[in-house]
Amino acid sequence: MGTAKRKRRARPPTGKRPVDRVLAEYDLSKLTIATLGSHTALQIFHGARQEGFKTLGIVLPRKKRVYDAFPLAKPDEFLTLHSYKDLIDKQDELIARNTVLVPHGSFVEYIGARMIANELKVPVFGNKASLEWETDRAIERRWLKMAGCRVPRIYKDASEIDGPCIIKYYGAKGGKDFFIVTNEDDFYKKIKRRHLEDKTYTIQEFIIGARYYHQMFYSPISRKGWPAGRGAIELMGIDRRIESNIDELHRFGFTREEMDDAGIVRSFVVTGNEPMVVRESLLDRVFEMGQGVVETSIELFDPGMVGPFCLETILTPELEFYVFEISARIVAGTNLYPLGSPYTPYLFDTPMSTGRRVAREIRLAAKRGMLGEVCS
Amino acid sequence: MGTAKRKRRARPPTGKRPVDRVLAEYDLSKLTIATLGSHTALQIFHGARQEGFKTLGIVLPRKKRVYDAFPLAKPDEFLTLHSYKDLIDKQDELIARNTVLVPHGSFVEYIGARMIANELKVPVFGNKASLEWETDRAIERRWLKMAGCRVPRIYKDASEIDGPCIIKYYGAKGGKDFFIVTNEDDFYKKIKRRHLEDKTYTIQEFIIGARYYHQMFYSPISRKGWPAGRGAIELMGIDRRIESNIDELHRFGFTREEMDDAGIVRSFVVTGNEPMVVRESLLDRVFEMGQGVVETSIELFDPGMVGPFCLETILTPELEFYVFEISARIVAGTNLYPLGSPYTPYLFDTPMSTGRRVAREIRLAAKRGMLGEVCS
Amino acid sequence: MGTAKRKRRARPPTGKRPVDRVLAEYDLSKLTIATLGSHTALQIFHGARQEGFKTLGIVLPRKKRVYDAFPLAKPDEFLTLHSYKDLIDKQDELIARNTVLVPHGSFVEYIGARMIANELKVPVFGNKASLEWETDRAIERRWLKMAGCRVPRIYKDASEIDGPCIIKYYGAKGGKDFFIVTNEDDFYKKIKRRHLEDKTYTIQEFIIGARYYHQMFYSPISRKGWPAGRGAIELMGIDRRIESNIDELHRFGFTREEMDDAGIVRSFVVTGNEPMVVRESLLDRVFEMGQGVVETSIELFDPGMVGPFCLETILTPELEFYVFEISARIVAGTNLYPLGSPYTPYLFDTPMSTGRRVAREIRLAAKRGMLGEVCS
Repeated sequence: MGTAKRKRRARPPTGKRPVDRVLAEYDLSKLTIATLGSHTALQIFHGARQEGFKTLGIVLPRKKRVYDAFPLAKPDEFLTLHSYKDLIDKQDELIARNTVLVPHGSFVEYIGARMIANELKVPVFGNKASLEWETDRAIERRWLKMAGCRVPRIYKDASEIDGPCIIKYYGAKGGKDFFIVTNEDDFYKKIKRRHLEDKTYTIQEFIIGARYYHQMFYSPISRKGWPAGRGAIELMGIDRRIESNIDELHRFGFTREEMDDAGIVRSFVVTGNEPMVVRESLLDRVFEMGQGVVETSIELFDPGMVGPFCLETILTPELEFYVFEISARIVAGTNLYPLGSPYTPYLFDTPMSTGRRVAREIRLAAKRGMLGEVCS
Repeated sequence: MGTAKRKRRARPPTGKRPVDRVLAEYDLSKLTIATLGSHTALQIFHGARQEGFKTLGIVLPRKKRVYDAFPLAKPDEFLTLHSYKDLIDKQDELIARNTVLVPHGSFVEYIGARMIANELKVPVFGNKASLEWETDRAIERRWLKMAGCRVPRIYKDASEIDGPCIIKYYGAKGGKDFFIVTNEDDFYKKIKRRHLEDKTYTIQEFIIGARYYHQMFYSPISRKGWPAGRGAIELMGIDRRIESNIDELHRFGFTREEMDDAGIVRSFVVTGNEPMVVRESLLDRVFEMGQGVVETSIELFDPGMVGPFCLETILTPELEFYVFEISARIVAGTNLYPLGSPYTPYLFDTPMSTGRRVAREIRLAAKRGMLGEVCS
Repeated sequence: MGTAKRKRRARPPTGKRPVDRVLAEYDLSKLTIATLGSHTALQIFHGARQEGFKTLGIVLPRKKRVYDAFPLAKPDEFLTLHSYKDLIDKQDELIARNTVLVPHGSFVEYIGARMIANELKVPVFGNKASLEWETDRAIERRWLKMAGCRVPRIYKDASEIDGPCIIKYYGAKGGKDFFIVTNEDDFYKKIKRRHLEDKTYTIQEFIIGARYYHQMFYSPISRKGWPAGRGAIELMGIDRRIESNIDELHRFGFTREEMDDAGIVRSFVVTGNEPMVVRESLLDRVFEMGQGVVETSIELFDPGMVGPFCLETILTPELEFYVFEISARIVAGTNLYPLGSPYTPYLFDTPMSTGRRVAREIRLAAKRGMLGEVCS
């Protein structure tokens, strides 16, 4: 991956950042892995224990007891907070415990990508900058396009419409709604019928296919994986998100009109995940996309994205992947695979969750004196 | 769980029931685990073998040979019956073998909850009374509501309708059918159009979301699990049932009208199961519901529900679970997990199916002289 | 399985075929397992390594590097070809390496069943003849019916229509399309409306239910499995194919008309697989169907189908399986189970993929001097 062009940046290089001064004081034989008690925490604590780390659960009072139900994923100790934002005030205590924080989706949601980047002194696994990139839809889109991923086209003007488009807008009930148009005339006719002339809407290329969520891991210190050479991308698993109510709305066979009349709003709330595998002949394309986003991330925010990430794709009947989102941290779909996925046995001879993979990366980096390479 | 208020009952307390006299004569070092050859029997026999028990398969002649295909789940011996009801006549033989029967869905269906409760002298794992509670929809509903679970509202009269409702009735082709209404006027208009004025129908709150079937286990003798203290609830896995033909009816995109014209009846026959995980932040709610039904069961039919059970839920976009059914015994969805589910590695350091968990409970109870606590 | 009536054939019996002369020269202690680098190759290489074989990957240049990403499934050596058909010219090299080729879906697609049967001298695992049978829809249908499997009825004339039928034809956009009819009048009315009078269409019984893909394995040399006696059928797993775009077309709730207006063509391209289990009480029927196709295959093309195969079924609400296709080689759905499926723990006490099962069959056959029985 040494081929990526690197631009000059204002950020200090690895080794001279504030986090490096914190890490320099750490007792590497007594590291603690900590995260917030939600999202993928069971897997992170379980994996950290498997790799021999002490674990610390940062929890709200009412969220602590779920760990009684999962003794092998229960952290050694708890830091109980009344608001997750209070974490900022507990940093000295965390640093005194030689803590590495593992960020996940709820972690980013509750603390905020900006606060993580600007106020968190405790070393964070991965590159904090990637959390900012993933949370802004416009720069995320730029990143994906630079990386060579297909993204659904966004049309600036109805006059550009040259094929099936989906028009997204906020409907009468406050939920997201959408309809299809196929050309400019069709667009204006349907906009008028729905009285959306003065509303905000998006005109997006209508890509329809099968959703595949590729759970990947980029290790800057490994040499075992794709591509050959320094740094390796690994495929940890594939899942599909289960969305409520859109995934079951069709079961009863009611039409959109019947639903609308009954005041039922179509929603896309992620409630869980189900496992799957993709056609083997497409795996090289999955890795190419992964390599693309990693190399581009190095250009965009050196040292780039580190650790787990996820490419959220639609696979069309023409067998082309369209990436509609990237997550630059561990995703909840990895919860399907606490002992490994249909892909990990080809990579590891022990059971390997993404949570354990994170802990292993920290362990190997610490052992090789490279912890700064995988933390920020 | 000592907080549940207990009412006086006519039943004799544990230790003085007929089953206790049977168990008192058992050679606990030579227990046999038996069940009917269907539903989850492979898992039950496999798990019993893993825990060191002798196994006995109670089978119909034509159902015996499937075990040739699964040698590691083949029972040590068979009791071949021409009708499952003949089991009642074979009880002395079973008792002579120190048998504990494990009830499952087909077991309850073929023998009948009432016959199990009243005529079966052979010790049954779990509490037979719970099998009666789960098979009566009205008392099941009362149980769930007392336990603090949300259940879809049933409207007694059309005048109460205050939101989307689903009207269920038996259609012309004899299959279950349904339509949506949103208020009283709408209801009468649609009832009239379908000529249902004199028919039987149910008016039920229309809850739409994603289905999650939570496979749980309650051990009255364990202290490891939710909640802290005596008795523990464990999450063994989550699945979704695959129903024919409703799950694929939509694939071809035909409308309800086209289907009706072709005489195709919508049906909800369970044919199998698929694996899934739920958002981790909702797990504490799953355990709260589990605790609620267990504690309530102790009030309703002491000593309450023991062993495997399943909460069948719909998860709405507002992330609220509605429980539409409870199974008070092992469910077929556990067949997905013969070596454990995405949740069991956080609980057990060996592969653990629900079948094996049952066997382990029997083993531990026998060892501690508490077999009567987990049998009835 | 000795009961199947066997007809006389022109083919030489096992032991006197060209492949037997090749195998006679093989050093059985130095066998190499080879396949084309696609489809189920990761699993085949991984399984062959687990069983102690040398492995050879036959790859196109751009398809080689995916194995860097999966070091434990990377073949020991590569044979890089610019076209898969060049394999025919490399046969002496493969034979010199004591190679057994494992055919999979892409193998059959790229080389061709006919070329495999007529020009491939390198021993192929399984019976090449079965690859020809599975690729011709008409003879496949005959095979399935002879085997006692239900298949959807094909009507020769509209006058025969006596229930819901699906009319399949090529639509205006070039994609497969379909509509439902229920009787002869309905058929002619709808054919006319779509201007299909002079087009080619198929009238097929409309079977709707849940799809189950049964991954099976027939070993002619094993005695452990269904049925008792020589030869054994094993159930390696069950999956469902994920088809793009038909599986997600319904998600947005657009009608067929809206889709058609937008020029969106319904397609059934297989993009991946998801895991599932079937009702345990139906497993004996699954094995009966498996036994039927194996025994019939012995009659039709002695020594019949050997190794992995797959029955692709629809399970109706009446719990009857309709077989719509058979694959007479390893299927991609087995990629879900690199360490085993929900069924393999009842058969094997080690993790067992179908890829490994193939390698084990070769190992056991070689050890017993029966390699000719499982190769062709």
